[in-house]
Amino acid sequence: MSDVPNRMQELRQALSDLNREILDLVGRRIALVDEMRALKLANGLPMYDPVRESRMFEALVEQGQGILGEAEIRSVFRPIFEISLAHMEGRASGDLRIGRRPGESDRVLNIKGGTIGVPGSPAVIAGPCAVESEEQLERTAAALAGMGIRFLRGGAFKPRTSPDAFQGLGIDGVKMLRAAADRHGLAAVTEVTDPRQLEDVAPLTDILQIGARNMANYALLQEAGRTGKPVLLKRAFAATIDEFLLAAEYLAKYGSSDGGIILCERGIRTFERETRFTLDVSAIPILRQKTALPVIADVSHAAGRRDLIAPLAKAALAAGASGLMLEVHPCPEAALSDASQQLSIQEFQQLLRELNVGVF
Amino acid sequence: MSDVPNRMQELRQALSDLNREILDLVGRRIALVDEMRALKLANGLPMYDPVRESRMFEALVEQGQGILGEAEIRSVFRPIFEISLAHMEGRASGDLRIGRRPGESDRVLNIKGGTIGVPGSPAVIAGPCAVESEEQLERTAAALAGMGIRFLRGGAFKPRTSPDAFQGLGIDGVKMLRAAADRHGLAAVTEVTDPRQLEDVAPLTDILQIGARNMANYALLQEAGRTGKPVLLKRAFAATIDEFLLAAEYLAKYGSSDGGIILCERGIRTFERETRFTLDVSAIPILRQKTALPVIADVSHAAGRRDLIAPLAKAALAAGASGLMLEVHPCPEAALSDASQQLSIQEFQQLLRELNVGVF
Amino acid sequence: MSDVPNRMQELRQALSDLNREILDLVGRRIALVDEMRALKLANGLPMYDPVRESRMFEALVEQGQGILGEAEIRSVFRPIFEISLAHMEGRASGDLRIGRRPGESDRVLNIKGGTIGVPGSPAVIAGPCAVESEEQLERTAAALAGMGIRFLRGGAFKPRTSPDAFQGLGIDGVKMLRAAADRHGLAAVTEVTDPRQLEDVAPLTDILQIGARNMANYALLQEAGRTGKPVLLKRAFAATIDEFLLAAEYLAKYGSSDGGIILCERGIRTFERETRFTLDVSAIPILRQKTALPVIADVSHAAGRRDLIAPLAKAALAAGASGLMLEVHPCPEAALSDASQQLSIQEFQQLLRELNVGVF
Amino acid sequence: MSDVPNRMQELRQALSDLNREILDLVGRRIALVDEMRALKLANGLPMYDPVRESRMFEALVEQGQGILGEAEIRSVFRPIFEISLAHMEGRASGDLRIGRRPGESDRVLNIKGGTIGVPGSPAVIAGPCAVESEEQLERTAAALAGMGIRFLRGGAFKPRTSPDAFQGLGIDGVKMLRAAADRHGLAAVTEVTDPRQLEDVAPLTDILQIGARNMANYALLQEAGRTGKPVLLKRAFAATIDEFLLAAEYLAKYGSSDGGIILCERGIRTFERETRFTLDVSAIPILRQKTALPVIADVSHAAGRRDLIAPLAKAALAAGASGLMLEVHPCPEAALSDASQQLSIQEFQQLLRELNVGVF
Repeated sequence: MSDVPNRMQELRQALSDLNREILDLVGRRIALVDEMRALKLANGLPMYDPVRESRMFEALVEQGQGILGEAEIRSVFRPIFEISLAHMEGRASGDLRIGRRPGESDRVLNIKGGTIGVPGSPAVIAGPCAVESEEQLERTAAALAGMGIRFLRGGAFKPRTSPDAFQGLGIDGVKMLRAAADRHGLAAVTEVTDPRQLEDVAPLTDILQIGARNMANYALLQEAGRTGKPVLLKRAFAATIDEFLLAAEYLAKYGSSDGGIILCERGIRTFERETRFTLDVSAIPILRQKTALPVIADVSHAAGRRDLIAPLAKAALAAGASGLMLEVHPCPEAALSDASQQLSIQEFQQLLRELNVGVF
Repeated sequence: MSDVPNRMQELRQALSDLNREILDLVGRRIALVDEMRALKLANGLPMYDPVRESRMFEALVEQGQGILGEAEIRSVFRPIFEISLAHMEGRASGDLRIGRRPGESDRVLNIKGGTIGVPGSPAVIAGPCAVESEEQLERTAAALAGMGIRFLRGGAFKPRTSPDAFQGLGIDGVKMLRAAADRHGLAAVTEVTDPRQLEDVAPLTDILQIGARNMANYALLQEAGRTGKPVLLKRAFAATIDEFLLAAEYLAKYGSSDGGIILCERGIRTFERETRFTLDVSAIPILRQKTALPVIADVSHAAGRRDLIAPLAKAALAAGASGLMLEVHPCPEAALSDASQQLSIQEFQQLLRELNVGVF
Repeated sequence: MSDVPNRMQELRQALSDLNREILDLVGRRIALVDEMRALKLANGLPMYDPVRESRMFEALVEQGQGILGEAEIRSVFRPIFEISLAHMEGRASGDLRIGRRPGESDRVLNIKGGTIGVPGSPAVIAGPCAVESEEQLERTAAALAGMGIRFLRGGAFKPRTSPDAFQGLGIDGVKMLRAAADRHGLAAVTEVTDPRQLEDVAPLTDILQIGARNMANYALLQEAGRTGKPVLLKRAFAATIDEFLLAAEYLAKYGSSDGGIILCERGIRTFERETRFTLDVSAIPILRQKTALPVIADVSHAAGRRDLIAPLAKAALAAGASGLMLEVHPCPEAALSDASQQLSIQEFQQLLRELNVGVF
Repeated sequence: MSDVPNRMQELRQALSDLNREILDLVGRRIALVDEMRALKLANGLPMYDPVRESRMFEALVEQGQGILGEAEIRSVFRPIFEISLAHMEGRASGDLRIGRRPGESDRVLNIKGGTIGVPGSPAVIAGPCAVESEEQLERTAAALAGMGIRFLRGGAFKPRTSPDAFQGLGIDGVKMLRAAADRHGLAAVTEVTDPRQLEDVAPLTDILQIGARNMANYALLQEAGRTGKPVLLKRAFAATIDEFLLAAEYLAKYGSSDGGIILCERGIRTFERETRFTLDVSAIPILRQKTALPVIADVSHAAGRRDLIAPLAKAALAAGASGLMLEVHPCPEAALSDASQQLSIQEFQQLLRELNVGVF
């Protein structure tokens, strides 16, 4: 049994050597493609030749008999041909725009004097689920400011499962949020749900929020990116981490990289029914490995239960989250939406104390 | 001992009377729940409130001390609360706009001479994943028309996970699709992804498609509904059946009920990795119970594997689907997207033969 | 310009040559992976090692600097690593004991004159969820025999979620089942839950059933295999198809391959709540590709709803199932377990008529 | 809109009042059942009368027309009839045996001088995935003891997905573990997988472990419970929290309540592929609400990635876990199983330092 590790090591080394050889060949292939591109450009030939690609597949399938199955061969060569075509067409892709560069430290957003992404100093974005009235916002904003919180959230365009549900106060709600934030020197965070809203909403807000249901609404991502505003993007409740990162790539491609992007884990859909969603706490360190963007957690929506907010908030911060998004309402029992998961101002203050965040 | 039967009879009668009283109270409880549902709907409140449910259980356990054990009380009230929640969420009631009325027979759509929803006559919507060229469409449309297929699909606005992937030919692609459909007397089906597309796209298409990623893009649903055109709505891959029906309610509320709505099951996301998604074949009879709308299945996307298309197509039809959506490409190997799940024209013809559909 | 075609031809030839070289390297890589698989299997090492995969990616990204971007390198090597993993996990190879050999036709079990696995002739295994009384079994067995059904099921050792629920009649129940089956010339199918039961139960039954909760109870699988009796193995509700096949490998390794193995899909756990489980209809053709064993579907347990039994039974057969497992009870309302999904004898007869199976 | 909260409050009160009235009627029903039980006992009549139950259902369905559907009526009355029958048969169930009593503080286990469940003092159970050799255990045990760790784990009976994988050293491995633990004054924790192992294994171990795959192996739970030894029970990766608690009930019913039960969250199966399982961190506070038992987390298995162990361990403790289960191996690269998730002794020491646990 003592030889097992040795032979394993040898095999691993051999596999790594083969990886390198394959990489070299792919690299040589790209060099030829670049020459072909120049030749085609000079002669006005079309770059993409599907018939030839099809024939190359057929030849490979024939050559590969006894080594690999047809589906395997196609899956190996498809990305090689795609990358070749991308080079041929001059649109060679690189790394993720939002990927963490080697050695890159966490990016920090500084908005209206509040920061997101400073190690050891978690940001808290708090406020009611839905904007309901000026009084509601005033009471919330005053309380938050008094506790040292710098980010006021409130939804004015609410994506609702039922078309007959309260859809929010719309642009009037955004204006109320803006005014309340300004009175107390807070940054305003509000959700957009339609690319046509951005012209009006972007100037009135400090951070645009894109909710879980719209994570793959690419038209909305593009328009939000184009505003150049910071965008807080929530993970769709059935999105893989890769899909989440590619949604953020839309923001970066269309402009948000300058303004800043904040990633928000808010729970995924699983079979468990004790909670509305299952907070995927592992996503927090994984996202932080893959990007240098701030990663926060919305623990109110994940659990859908007020009694789990404190333990989940602690867990998210312990796992490395840069901040929390929390629902706070001056009178949760009377809230028009998500009453069961909104904290009262007293409960919120108690939570901050437990988390040792803010002024209390 | 002669009294035993008498006392037994009395006890049995008393038990039956109590059954009836309990039934009446449960009935009165449902009536209150129905009122609460209306109130919550109008005010955008969430239907399910696990904290309150938890408190009701606690109160009952306290009140029931000495009468029943905690587990007994929970087992008695769990179904009562579940039925109440079902009523609250409209699952038990017939008040969905798209809900099947008592005795209502299946609705049939008749578009350009093709029908969807005729029992025993499955509709087939076929064509390439993405519109690539006039030639590609012409070859496909000619072949389909020759096989008796009435619906030509083709994507011109492609929602792509990566911002750097081919995003489709846009409005030019829609025009190509329209022209090819017209040349062969077919109805044209194409996807929309942005509410701003509808002004241009709706006049050029016979059925608007809304894809799985946009099922909860409510702005898009509203605009699509407003066009009055038939809409084919795909289930999001993590949407419950209720959420899917409520998305269709958006269409109905804003106008599509006149034009027609087609529901499309296309697989849900589960832990299983052999297939890209898990076709939820149970959803087909459930959707048909709950609505009279045509329910079709997109088996190309569900499996993501060409070799499973035939068995899944048969299963979907056997479970009651009114039709199928299938990807067909004159040269699948050269397809710009989803090559691994597109059928060649020959494979498609063979499938129709196996399904005993169309002319072959 | 006359040289263009020449140089183009040269470049094309060079690209094709590189394709072939890459293919050879990938083939050599698979050969090493096959050796590693054998080594890991013998030593109980896990096949998938995400940390090592991650390090290989990192090494390649470093080596590839200046040649290819990180995203390109990942997209080239992802399918190569996936195929390697598939080989490592035995998914691509034919070396499962229960794997379908090239050209192997479906295996057919012949038990007490009834067959399972004959194309076009679905087997039906029916009977009550739990054995309750001799009268219950007699009524069921007589009715089934009259309808041409050859397999009588009934549970005597019931795995129950709660320790206080009715756990079945035990060995007395098995004897009742045996007697009822013998009176009507039927094969008897009953579940075992403990390796210590096999000594007594195996001689009294024709097919041993291992339920979903015990699919990974390897001690039970070994003992069941050792009896040499046919075993009907249900898929655990969170097992991947590969895990299911490997559980069947335990049976085959310890002896059941002679007696026969029947695989049973019975629904997986997903987020959907309309049904108790989601019937994974795709698993049926996939299992039949991978093995030549009979694959049946238990649609009673999958849905947990009587009203879905007919459409799901049709779907399962359409997808290629060799048979069905169904719960039938002479008086479902009075059943001691799973009342909501058991069919009455009349309902069962009606179902057979719809499925065009048996004598009716 | 100001009246909404008022009417909501009224409706909620009315629903609570109805709950109480239903409870009273069910209580009166039980009192009648108790009288009937006495009458039947005195006269030798059978307790269960399925025909009468069936007629009661029919009467209720008839009476309930227009109020509730048949399925709803059955689901409401089924538990009422079941509880009635349990009372009739003298086996009336009470609360969960393992349920937290009102005001009950956390239970603390004290084993060989180590404690599990002391607030603020997390227990760490560490050691190799599989027992491989005396030397491996000696190096591990010596290192753990030096760091103040009190619980040594090591698997000798390994439940393996493939029948051809290394299945562990069996009883010899358990003896090695016992000896190593004794040399260093540690408690020994090892997994059992077959009820027939307990006679030999229980005397040699301090805590019996039942793994995720065997959580619903009720025969094993019963035998483990009967030993009276403390049992560490892992949640199956597709078990709901309720199913997990009921599995622990088996232990408590058969005897473990005296010895102690430790619940272990170890990740659930979801669609996400970055991790092997998704640690359900919410389960920790929920389990602690429902029971007073110690709840620990196995973060090695949840993630399947060494690089996530530290953040997940912190998150689990922050969420309220009483301890951690961790895989430590003197030479992880050479480990025979789960190499990718085992920590070296140095990495483990570094982790303890980060967690501020133990002596370092």
